[in-house]
Amino acid sequence: MTQPTIAFIAEEVGVSVTTVSKVLNGHADVAAATRERVEDSLRRHQYQRRTARRAAGHIDLVFHELDSVWAMEILRGVSAVAGPDGTPVMVSHLDGQHRPDRARIDRLLTRRPLGIIMVLCAVADAQHRQLARRGIPLVIVDNDSATSARVPTVGANNWNGGLLATRHLIELGHRRIAVVTGPRDVLCSQARLAGYRFAHESSDLLVDPALVRYGDFTAEAGLTHGLRLLDRADRPTAVFAGSDMQAMGVLRAAERLGLSVPRDLSVIGYDDLPMAAWTGPALTTVNQPLREMAGAATRMLLDLARGIPVPADRIDFVTGLVVRETTGPPA
Amino acid sequence: MTQPTIAFIAEEVGVSVTTVSKVLNGHADVAAATRERVEDSLRRHQYQRRTARRAAGHIDLVFHELDSVWAMEILRGVSAVAGPDGTPVMVSHLDGQHRPDRARIDRLLTRRPLGIIMVLCAVADAQHRQLARRGIPLVIVDNDSATSARVPTVGANNWNGGLLATRHLIELGHRRIAVVTGPRDVLCSQARLAGYRFAHESSDLLVDPALVRYGDFTAEAGLTHGLRLLDRADRPTAVFAGSDMQAMGVLRAAERLGLSVPRDLSVIGYDDLPMAAWTGPALTTVNQPLREMAGAATRMLLDLARGIPVPADRIDFVTGLVVRETTGPPA
Repeated sequence: MTQPTIAFIAEEVGVSVTTVSKVLNGHADVAAATRERVEDSLRRHQYQRRTARRAAGHIDLVFHELDSVWAMEILRGVSAVAGPDGTPVMVSHLDGQHRPDRARIDRLLTRRPLGIIMVLCAVADAQHRQLARRGIPLVIVDNDSATSARVPTVGANNWNGGLLATRHLIELGHRRIAVVTGPRDVLCSQARLAGYRFAHESSDLLVDPALVRYGDFTAEAGLTHGLRLLDRADRPTAVFAGSDMQAMGVLRAAERLGLSVPRDLSVIGYDDLPMAAWTGPALTTVNQPLREMAGAATRMLLDLARGIPVPADRIDFVTGLVVRETTGPPA
Repeated sequence: MTQPTIAFIAEEVGVSVTTVSKVLNGHADVAAATRERVEDSLRRHQYQRRTARRAAGHIDLVFHELDSVWAMEILRGVSAVAGPDGTPVMVSHLDGQHRPDRARIDRLLTRRPLGIIMVLCAVADAQHRQLARRGIPLVIVDNDSATSARVPTVGANNWNGGLLATRHLIELGHRRIAVVTGPRDVLCSQARLAGYRFAHESSDLLVDPALVRYGDFTAEAGLTHGLRLLDRADRPTAVFAGSDMQAMGVLRAAERLGLSVPRDLSVIGYDDLPMAAWTGPALTTVNQPLREMAGAATRMLLDLARGIPVPADRIDFVTGLVVRETTGPPA
């Protein structure tokens, strides 16, 4: 297997070496049709940029959104591995989108990163091939959609987290347990909800569909859903709030309605953010080792960039229950 | 005034053009003595890299530490201006140091940034000249030491914030008011403390030295100092907590000692982080417009990098009081 040179590709397509190089580096000033033909030829010849050229450079860390302390925990984890390695970290976000568009991928390529870490977002298959051809490895942290086998991913076991949280409430004696999970179209929300359902099933309890809500992981969503759930005659005695921020919103809703936590209502969060230990009362939650996850993703990426094979395509960190003061037996 | 060429500098010092270029770009492989001589010559001839060459590139955003949601607010503010401008942002931190060492500045230079934003840290005068010679502008956000006139700085009026917070408590009727400010050697801590003192003076109240504490802006510090301050017979009826995280710690201390907020104790934070509205009870605090401050610093930097003069060397954002639920009249 010999690797085709850029000159070979240029000759085959009938363009200059500069044009091929521009396409490889994601410059915008190549006509769409020409670019298509160059990409075609690169694909056909399985062009792979030599990894040696990629051993230097920065890590491009792409968030779907820069919100809350969640993103900061990821950044700290990446930084803790990249810093001592001497690899700079470039941070950007997709304005809340979970899929980058072509222009954004092109901009990423222009920066010639050593590798890319995407957080709560992922690329389309064609974009992934575009990166692979340039020898730019990609690692995803906590992706929101079914994992393609070829993209290394670091996540946490969300189904297990939902199960742990709900089982804790059932064991305390709760029978009417509400859930406010994340957005409907985000995989981790669905996995946590599935864990909640399985905990009910395995204890022969029915789930009341009126108690299942979809939020967006913000405190505001916790407050809104909390007020609706708790302001009814057959109100739940416990809420699995799907995220620590949503849990803070539910706690505020309880306070507004004069409910005391955990006497009148148990609340459990998800994430175990640094502030979870400091809310009043301190939040019972599910620990996602965000920093460790981000650190593992970074080590994986640095290995891939240096041509070292990684042991697994997907690493799932184990979630654990952290019992503090917001959960107790029902009144 | 003609600008000396690199070749001119090289000839004067008696080294190659490559060596001068290496010194300019911060490469480590130049002998210390040689480097010194090159730097000398650059300084003598007031060598300034042409700004045109610096119009492209990334922003290097340097934190003293990546802690808490405070840093995330700054990153969001920088990103909100740099993103639409198409300028990438590289993020690093100084492991809690407020002064970068030479090796770190050299690494920064190797990356050839368009400009540098330093948050809660600053460079020595010699390092600033090193940057200026390379035409790399520097802007500081909320610097921790007296501002040198030549370094553009964006801050918030900390003295005013300390005054507002303390005056609010005095107006509510409090007479024994404790303060837990930040570290002793950080200017903003001292400015907030000075505002606290001035509020007392202007109301003809004496400050009890036993009620003045220095923390480190963490919730842990708030808890430790809170327990000590509140577990005494002549305990204060109000605490100005210096930061929202410290306020969360003080709230936990009050809870542990069975004190109800705001009935038995008023607590006021500083920063107005997103979560401040969601603590139970919701935190009264001083608003620092962190995102706007970071945005202004970024605009300043981009202007400087493009040779556009900036209107002021120091911009101070006005701090404002946000009254929520943790403050009230003393019992």
